[in-house]
Amino acid sequence: MLVVKIGGAEGIGIESVCSDVAKLVAAGEQVVVVHGGSALATQLGEDVGYPPRFVTSVSGHSSRYTDKRTLEIFLMATGLLNRQIVAELQRLGVNAAGMSGIDGKTLQAKRKGALRIVENGKRKILRDDYTGSIQTVDPTTLQALLDAGLTPVVAPIALSEAHDPLNVDGDRAAASIAGALKSQDLMILTNVPGLLRAFPDESSRIVNLPASELEDALENVAQGRMKRKVLAAKEALDGGVQRVILCDARVDAPISNGLAGNGTSIQ
Amino acid sequence: MLVVKIGGAEGIGIESVCSDVAKLVAAGEQVVVVHGGSALATQLGEDVGYPPRFVTSVSGHSSRYTDKRTLEIFLMATGLLNRQIVAELQRLGVNAAGMSGIDGKTLQAKRKGALRIVENGKRKILRDDYTGSIQTVDPTTLQALLDAGLTPVVAPIALSEAHDPLNVDGDRAAASIAGALKSQDLMILTNVPGLLRAFPDESSRIVNLPASELEDALENVAQGRMKRKVLAAKEALDGGVQRVILCDARVDAPISNGLAGNGTSIQ
Repeated sequence: MLVVKIGGAEGIGIESVCSDVAKLVAAGEQVVVVHGGSALATQLGEDVGYPPRFVTSVSGHSSRYTDKRTLEIFLMATGLLNRQIVAELQRLGVNAAGMSGIDGKTLQAKRKGALRIVENGKRKILRDDYTGSIQTVDPTTLQALLDAGLTPVVAPIALSEAHDPLNVDGDRAAASIAGALKSQDLMILTNVPGLLRAFPDESSRIVNLPASELEDALENVAQGRMKRKVLAAKEALDGGVQRVILCDARVDAPISNGLAGNGTSIQ
Repeated sequence: MLVVKIGGAEGIGIESVCSDVAKLVAAGEQVVVVHGGSALATQLGEDVGYPPRFVTSVSGHSSRYTDKRTLEIFLMATGLLNRQIVAELQRLGVNAAGMSGIDGKTLQAKRKGALRIVENGKRKILRDDYTGSIQTVDPTTLQALLDAGLTPVVAPIALSEAHDPLNVDGDRAAASIAGALKSQDLMILTNVPGLLRAFPDESSRIVNLPASELEDALENVAQGRMKRKVLAAKEALDGGVQRVILCDARVDAPISNGLAGNGTSIQ
């Protein structure tokens, strides 16, 4: 089994990755697709006159502030992307089925609650944020779909303890799903060729990273958004996944390319 | 089993109907919820500066013209509503799972293709319409969710022969699903107390309508949007459903109210 996280970033076409999924499914492999949605959510936010607001935490991290309206926009945008991916897979002969982490309580998360931010040099607390970190995964719904011969396509939304939908990180959602399904492989597609020892020099790609060096890579190698992907890789391996591949979404057959060794393989 | 179609019209709260679904599920009944989305789609269309365009067919019927952008808006709006219903059911202890008719090719439809309309007294043909009429239902995905103990919540989207998502009528989607699942009952909630012999006089409600009188009711009694609901009732009974109840969504416990005989029962 392969769990593959495809990007939500702009410029990453779904056609090539869906075509690659279709090849694997035709060859008898079970595949679970997890997607993002940030680019479409940003676009929709602008379209409805409610553009995203990025805030900087006290510890210096930048993130999208997800108030109630931004959450609604995220639910709409990921709803569209999920259905576009399912339709494209159906076009290619894959009997896909869309879902999100709230269905069957697949992903349960702890709401972050108060966001401590710095704005114009002043500290503030934002209390109505709807993001969360995944606590538990119930694979019942995913397994029911897989057992029925379907290919699940999952949007990164989780259910809070108070039963509110929450925006959760797609990479870490894919990692936790791969762990819960005891998937052999997790692939995280991104807009670089893998983990780069000297970002942004693409020739400095690390081809194989032993799991024992993950902690060091997290501290000293990964930068920016790659940090979250390496963290997701660590969580997946801790959860029982045998191999995590970080590889390039921008090439023609991105999954085949990653499986052929053209990425960073972590095990 | 009960398949219940809840409205997409404004002013119909999801809380009361979800609370009623929760009571039935707690009592051991299998329930499938089918929803609309037209009001939210209209709202979102206005929010993004692309309001719906209603056209009048050559035969005099008014309908929403669904071009590619309107379809995207419909996919987004129904995505939001679907997740709001699932979250509300989860809050009430029902392990719900959202889906649409494209998942697992549950609903396959024939795209209407050219719309022949009259505008400003002139005849026109609109070719890029993404609406369809349901041809076949594959209950595999629904059954897999039901077998896993989940309560499916279905958005009225079908897959065309060319694998495009299509906007389909929610009442008729519910009817075809009820038939395919061999559901005992189909309930269609609406904003009147049932089929009225003298619309809009609510005291003229028909309490029991024999199936043999459906054709006559369709021709001579049902008006406006109620015509589609009576047509859906006919399709459901033709498909093997034992009883169809048309009843009022505006009351406190709309499903219990309808099951207690306060609607129009057709069998």
